[in-house]
Amino acid sequence: MAQKPSIPKGTRDFLPADVARRSYVIDIIKTQFERFGFLPIETPAMEKAATLQGKYGEEGDRLIFNILNSGEKVKKADVSALAEDELKRFTASVSEKALRYDLTVPFARFVVQHQNELTFPFKRYQVQSVWRADRPQRGRFQEFTQCDADVVGAVSPVLEAECIQLFDAVFRDLSLKGATIRINHRSILSGIAAYLGAPERITDFTVALDKIDKIGATGVFDELTEKGFDKSALSKLSPLLQVSGDITQQLETLEKILFNYPDALKGITHLRDVLRFVSPLQASHLVFDLSLARGLNYYTGIIFEISPPKSVEMGSIGAGGRYDDLTALFGLKDMHGLGISFGLDRLCMVLEELDLFPLTLKQSVDVVVLNFGSSYMQDLMPHIAHWRADGVRVMVYPTDHKLKKQMQFANQSMTPWTLFYGESEQKQKIITLKNMQSGDTKEVKLSEFTYSLLAT
Amino acid sequence: MAQKPSIPKGTRDFLPADVARRSYVIDIIKTQFERFGFLPIETPAMEKAATLQGKYGEEGDRLIFNILNSGEKVKKADVSALAEDELKRFTASVSEKALRYDLTVPFARFVVQHQNELTFPFKRYQVQSVWRADRPQRGRFQEFTQCDADVVGAVSPVLEAECIQLFDAVFRDLSLKGATIRINHRSILSGIAAYLGAPERITDFTVALDKIDKIGATGVFDELTEKGFDKSALSKLSPLLQVSGDITQQLETLEKILFNYPDALKGITHLRDVLRFVSPLQASHLVFDLSLARGLNYYTGIIFEISPPKSVEMGSIGAGGRYDDLTALFGLKDMHGLGISFGLDRLCMVLEELDLFPLTLKQSVDVVVLNFGSSYMQDLMPHIAHWRADGVRVMVYPTDHKLKKQMQFANQSMTPWTLFYGESEQKQKIITLKNMQSGDTKEVKLSEFTYSLLAT
Repeated sequence: MAQKPSIPKGTRDFLPADVARRSYVIDIIKTQFERFGFLPIETPAMEKAATLQGKYGEEGDRLIFNILNSGEKVKKADVSALAEDELKRFTASVSEKALRYDLTVPFARFVVQHQNELTFPFKRYQVQSVWRADRPQRGRFQEFTQCDADVVGAVSPVLEAECIQLFDAVFRDLSLKGATIRINHRSILSGIAAYLGAPERITDFTVALDKIDKIGATGVFDELTEKGFDKSALSKLSPLLQVSGDITQQLETLEKILFNYPDALKGITHLRDVLRFVSPLQASHLVFDLSLARGLNYYTGIIFEISPPKSVEMGSIGAGGRYDDLTALFGLKDMHGLGISFGLDRLCMVLEELDLFPLTLKQSVDVVVLNFGSSYMQDLMPHIAHWRADGVRVMVYPTDHKLKKQMQFANQSMTPWTLFYGESEQKQKIITLKNMQSGDTKEVKLSEFTYSLLAT
Repeated sequence: MAQKPSIPKGTRDFLPADVARRSYVIDIIKTQFERFGFLPIETPAMEKAATLQGKYGEEGDRLIFNILNSGEKVKKADVSALAEDELKRFTASVSEKALRYDLTVPFARFVVQHQNELTFPFKRYQVQSVWRADRPQRGRFQEFTQCDADVVGAVSPVLEAECIQLFDAVFRDLSLKGATIRINHRSILSGIAAYLGAPERITDFTVALDKIDKIGATGVFDELTEKGFDKSALSKLSPLLQVSGDITQQLETLEKILFNYPDALKGITHLRDVLRFVSPLQASHLVFDLSLARGLNYYTGIIFEISPPKSVEMGSIGAGGRYDDLTALFGLKDMHGLGISFGLDRLCMVLEELDLFPLTLKQSVDVVVLNFGSSYMQDLMPHIAHWRADGVRVMVYPTDHKLKKQMQFANQSMTPWTLFYGESEQKQKIITLKNMQSGDTKEVKLSEFTYSLLAT
């Protein structure tokens, strides 16, 4: 009995048109990564379980896909752990490898492992799949592609400025106008927590603040009250959230309010240092966003998050920030890092929604050669070999089916041209080219066909 | 305690120079796939276990990497199966997904699942990783990349001829001369088995024959004797193995010997049909190889296998053949297929050994900008933004470390150019470019720098 074929939930097949769209975006991102001095690396899909476990928090650990040990090794399954509901222990007894959960931890592992082969500061980019046992939903998959660029081994505001410029350059090349590059600084958040009288509660504070887009300022206040922040703290927070104007003005206002809090001043000064090196953006807006607090345990300096243009309802399409000591997990200290990431899938969804994919992407091959039978094909094949060597993408219809059927194929495959070489062409040593859009035909000497003829 | 970082056996990290080499080969293969009318698709790394199980023989099944069910699902582990040493049943109880083992079975699944979205004949290519729990050794990895092109939904000798041409075009573009494209036909092997008086023993016969390169004709004869072939059979086989001359002559000789065996004649005729459409090869030799018998259960017509140039000791670097009814496993009958595959890892090893990778691959960025301090960098950054927009790959040294240290970085990163913008340059509104190979410098007006200056 034949199986009805399907793929696991949260995974996807990509048809040629999908691959074309994704490659278009990936190529633009890679090109910009390289223009900003990043070099490509790749790491294996399978890492040792120990490399990944404990790096993503408890929730993250649960979402890691583990690979079952192969062969006889599964016999070592710890059945008692299973009986005692110790699933983690049971998993460890049958699985030594796991699938890449993100590109950052493998990169940290890579830097430590290959430190003697690398030149620092080391700028690397990586475009690879990651896997998460997350509940699938719109824009969230169990297998998806991340596009990361990180620099390790240097601290300089020039690097942060380049991240901003890089985001903008990618959006410019994608013709995506109106994305917002939101920035904040971890030290400013620490300073504010101190200003509110609860420096040790910075996590509670930022977790609440992070939700302001969803639950509004009132919601944030409610949550903070619940967490034990007192009224005076909240009344101090209110004006901070209303800081307005351009970034320079916002930072000035903040500075006046927080002048007594060294952490805050440090963050403000650093953002100003970064802004000195930022040239005018071409496709996106740069804004300071006090409520931006992503991944706080992880980031230690500037934080980035990119919102798509306002007309599109979608979460962030990019993010990043400065982190310190990520490599310390693997035994290498004082290796400062700064990284950004593009969310390929969401970026594609945004471009799709705004109809920003170039029409030309849909083209499959340059020309479909119609097949009038063996003797004609035998004549034609050596010429086709030359055309292909010149770069023409040629689909030869493999059999001499009825012309109607072949033309139907040509239409469905959206080829811009078809090529006829039948009895009359053979006699005259010509080919006939048909433009599939206009319906116009032209005759060309068999020996004179070149790629450029297909351009017009 | 920090972990000493490492990766699972049989997997690899790729450093920038590795990625450059692999991308070089992949790009050439992809470009040729497209010139021959193949379109790209991608399938998920994770397939349902049922899709893969039972498709690769018992040995293959054992080498599939299974993914442990996540969360509470592992509680369904069939402990009794484990106790009874029923590892397959145990595995099935804790694992519903598995990693892609090759690209062919997922492609068959894809064709059936998306049959209504595809235009037939459908030519697809796919360059993706596959995973096998094989014992790692030189040239054999647990995670490796396959480059496959297949056409389904048509039968025509033109397609087989195109496969040969495609192999040759890739080798030509890689400047790899002297590879051997070996072909055979399953029907010829059937015909010979009949001629030897044991048509039902074709598997024994071909398994032995396949080893002729390793064990010689005598070894093959010994093995066949062991399997019960009688002396008269072996004396009939001997002249077949000595058939010589070019392909046309070989087929003629074969035809004379096997004139009474319809299967053999069918295969011979078919190969002749294919040869009609093959233009002169440019980089490789085409030979008929009677001992070629790969994956017999799978292939039903022509068989391809590519040997590297004789100076390199290495197994096959490419293979392929015609198969029928692979999609029948998933419920779609009469979908004939023909496919070829390049072994990326081995191909890279061959190119490495023959020193065929272009030297230019080693270049990292186009220019390293030396950093003389904030005020200079602030001047320079808007210009750098323009240069990058023009396509220049610019690495800005992020800090104003001592020049010696910066030059050391530039040397190690193998940049062809460094760019100086210090006090004297700032005064004159120029930049100084230093060619890192010749040591020559040239001064250029800040506003007049273009990509083309780096070409010379």
